Amino acid sequence: MNPEFEHELRAALRADQVSTAPGDLARHAIDQGPVTDYREPAAVVWAETVADVQAVVRGAAAHAVPVVARGAGTGVSGGAHATEGCLVLNLERMNRILELNAADEIARVEPGVVNADLNAAAAAHGLMYAPDPASFKISTIGGNVATNAGGLRCAKYGVTRDAVLALDVVLADGSLIHTGHRTFKGVAGYDLTGLFVGSEGTLGIVVGATVRLRYLPADVRTLAVFFPDVQGAAAGVLVLGAARVQPCILELLDGPSLAELDFRNASTLSDRGGALLLIQFDGLAADREVVIARDALTNLGGNVSEEDPAEAGYLVELRRNNRGMDVDTENRVGEDVAVPRSQLVRYITALEDMAARHGVGVRVIAHAGDGNLHPTFWVPGMDTGSIAALNRALDESIETALALGGTITGEHGIGQYKLRWLPLEQREDVLELQRRIKDLFDPQGILNPGKALTARTSRS
Amino acid sequence: MNPEFEHELRAALRADQVSTAPGDLARHAIDQGPVTDYREPAAVVWAETVADVQAVVRGAAAHAVPVVARGAGTGVSGGAHATEGCLVLNLERMNRILELNAADEIARVEPGVVNADLNAAAAAHGLMYAPDPASFKISTIGGNVATNAGGLRCAKYGVTRDAVLALDVVLADGSLIHTGHRTFKGVAGYDLTGLFVGSEGTLGIVVGATVRLRYLPADVRTLAVFFPDVQGAAAGVLVLGAARVQPCILELLDGPSLAELDFRNASTLSDRGGALLLIQFDGLAADREVVIARDALTNLGGNVSEEDPAEAGYLVELRRNNRGMDVDTENRVGEDVAVPRSQLVRYITALEDMAARHGVGVRVIAHAGDGNLHPTFWVPGMDTGSIAALNRALDESIETALALGGTITGEHGIGQYKLRWLPLEQREDVLELQRRIKDLFDPQGILNPGKALTARTSRS
Repeated sequence: MNPEFEHELRAALRADQVSTAPGDLARHAIDQGPVTDYREPAAVVWAETVADVQAVVRGAAAHAVPVVARGAGTGVSGGAHATEGCLVLNLERMNRILELNAADEIARVEPGVVNADLNAAAAAHGLMYAPDPASFKISTIGGNVATNAGGLRCAKYGVTRDAVLALDVVLADGSLIHTGHRTFKGVAGYDLTGLFVGSEGTLGIVVGATVRLRYLPADVRTLAVFFPDVQGAAAGVLVLGAARVQPCILELLDGPSLAELDFRNASTLSDRGGALLLIQFDGLAADREVVIARDALTNLGGNVSEEDPAEAGYLVELRRNNRGMDVDTENRVGEDVAVPRSQLVRYITALEDMAARHGVGVRVIAHAGDGNLHPTFWVPGMDTGSIAALNRALDESIETALALGGTITGEHGIGQYKLRWLPLEQREDVLELQRRIKDLFDPQGILNPGKALTARTSRS
Repeated sequence: MNPEFEHELRAALRADQVSTAPGDLARHAIDQGPVTDYREPAAVVWAETVADVQAVVRGAAAHAVPVVARGAGTGVSGGAHATEGCLVLNLERMNRILELNAADEIARVEPGVVNADLNAAAAAHGLMYAPDPASFKISTIGGNVATNAGGLRCAKYGVTRDAVLALDVVLADGSLIHTGHRTFKGVAGYDLTGLFVGSEGTLGIVVGATVRLRYLPADVRTLAVFFPDVQGAAAGVLVLGAARVQPCILELLDGPSLAELDFRNASTLSDRGGALLLIQFDGLAADREVVIARDALTNLGGNVSEEDPAEAGYLVELRRNNRGMDVDTENRVGEDVAVPRSQLVRYITALEDMAARHGVGVRVIAHAGDGNLHPTFWVPGMDTGSIAALNRALDESIETALALGGTITGEHGIGQYKLRWLPLEQREDVLELQRRIKDLFDPQGILNPGKALTARTSRS
């Protein structure tokens, strides 16, 4: 760390807000994404106020030091990985719910508020904050905003973007702006709020968010529908759509995923079938939707059982925690593509085929209601040949998703790890337009450099 | 029109695609917004293909001629008003539905597709395109995208932004880009799609849109709830929220609005009460929601009656056509503010008070579920004093909405007419950031200049 900048930081902040201790640097080097270029930050700063963030960014701008903003570090694309010489700006201490207005159905929060804490506070008013990434018990709203996080419930309630009404953002020069509106609707000016959501801290640092809350559903009904094979389960997703019912949760788990869950939790899901659709309906229509769904899926050959609330909670919990067992390693990588729902059956079949051809393992879990799949590929060995096979399978899984009209990332973000595939999805002209937006917001390139966007090639 | 450019246009397009005939120029001079600076375009071009749009924009860029893109011209903020020396680019002939995929629940459309036509095509598959501005029978998807149009159903289904997945956009240099994704979820890159939605043709010209469709509800139940006064009706909006039911339509009409409807339609709404909440529930929960709503609103003193489908359709139609009777004139202007829902009662009371103080008439219709109000102010005379009083009331209505945490435009857009109030809502730093985005996308300033954003002051 530039000694002058470190001196300034220590003068501006309390002693427990700045650290260059090796343990702190190591703990802030990476998020939960795959690591391809391990770097430790030069320093870590814990901001406690908006003014802290402004002071840090002003200093970073003056000394041209990169700033990687970070919440709980639960991202899985390396969006919060440290980069060479950077300062990691930890926002977890900015964890106050500033306002929870039940009549207006909104909350104003600091970026370090944990998703589950906001939900607990909202539940006291019969409300909920709908976006629920698997990490919701520990991840922060700021991080959710930075990645435009999805989750299980977004099949019905939308993703983070759909819940964010307004933002307070510290720009690359340390200035503070406010975007958006407190009202549900508002069309004054360009959609700067949407531009910041999902921009992974590369355009500005979110220091406050006004979010829309939804009604906590009184009724929740959960179906477990087992099929002989994963193709049947994927077909069930389309049958539900054709029946015009809207689950709040619609998760698909293939046979290997059920076996893995059984192994880890001593459960017996595999005994019940070769693939599972875990379906939850909520709200005042739930009772009628269950009847319609049961008929449609039984006709398709599904083995439908309604789970009692305890068992349903257990199953959803198993599914949510799936991510926990899938933290990426060099020889096991979870993907995050999305395809149009009509392509689910074809895509899953293609995944099985490509895994067999490349000699790698694959299991598939999907937020199937959104066509958002999380296939996990793995190889047993760490040798060069195995890792190369794993990467070939990953590449092919991405290319196939794109060929079917899909995207390389449904909800995890590009971060650092997915940069290699971004040019397959977006043409150079669109990438260059985004780079110019990045240049406009951050002319020095100090905000989370090397993330979200591929760099210009030397020619351009 | 620059003779060379006109020559090039006539060489590139068919004779019936270019006009400088006085009748065509006059017909394309204004949209339905208030006119403060009447200008006729230098020429009108009807594009029929994406290539047409590209050729026109390339030529306009070469000759530095402003381009005002336009669909049906139903906007009410003057966003499609012609400006000095401009070319109006009419997109109504690009009216093909390119794809309607019922399994994927999406449609790909050209910009000139009329909203109602898309809904008719979707209905054949049990689907609907949810955003329904009052103009939906004649307005185009391209215009809806340009203004991020709202409507009645967005209380439940969201606004245009929430329905748009991907866009094809011709940029200011005539190049064509594609933004977004065909899937429901996708977080690759910055949200360029959201940036174009609502940008009123100032950043690019939308020549194609991929939109998400929703399930056409099987059940629809409509309640007419009359209250003694408008404050009671506004309180009813909060009571419904507290009862955790989600109407698809929740419209508030005050006494003068009911009287106006009665006068124009020979109806007898005013005999039934002093203010009306027109409430529609749809979908599989409708039956249960009606029971809950009826109880809650009866307890509040509302006179609840369920309308048979014919009468319900008639009432909704009356409400939708309200805009028709309120096309703005010099002495009658409809507003479009939004306030947090908890402020509805206070705001409506303030409107009545300010109208009385300024000696102007006011009636209020609101998409009350969103807190989006359309007060109409009028004065009987056209004299300077009357018009000044009208403008004082308008100004105060805007300032009061902002003071209550609201916005100056819930769904109509800034266009040309609302520029004067934009700096009251957005600080100079936020405006300047948007101007720089505009400069990045349109360095010559040829795309709908003088709309959506206030110009830099001479100092900056």
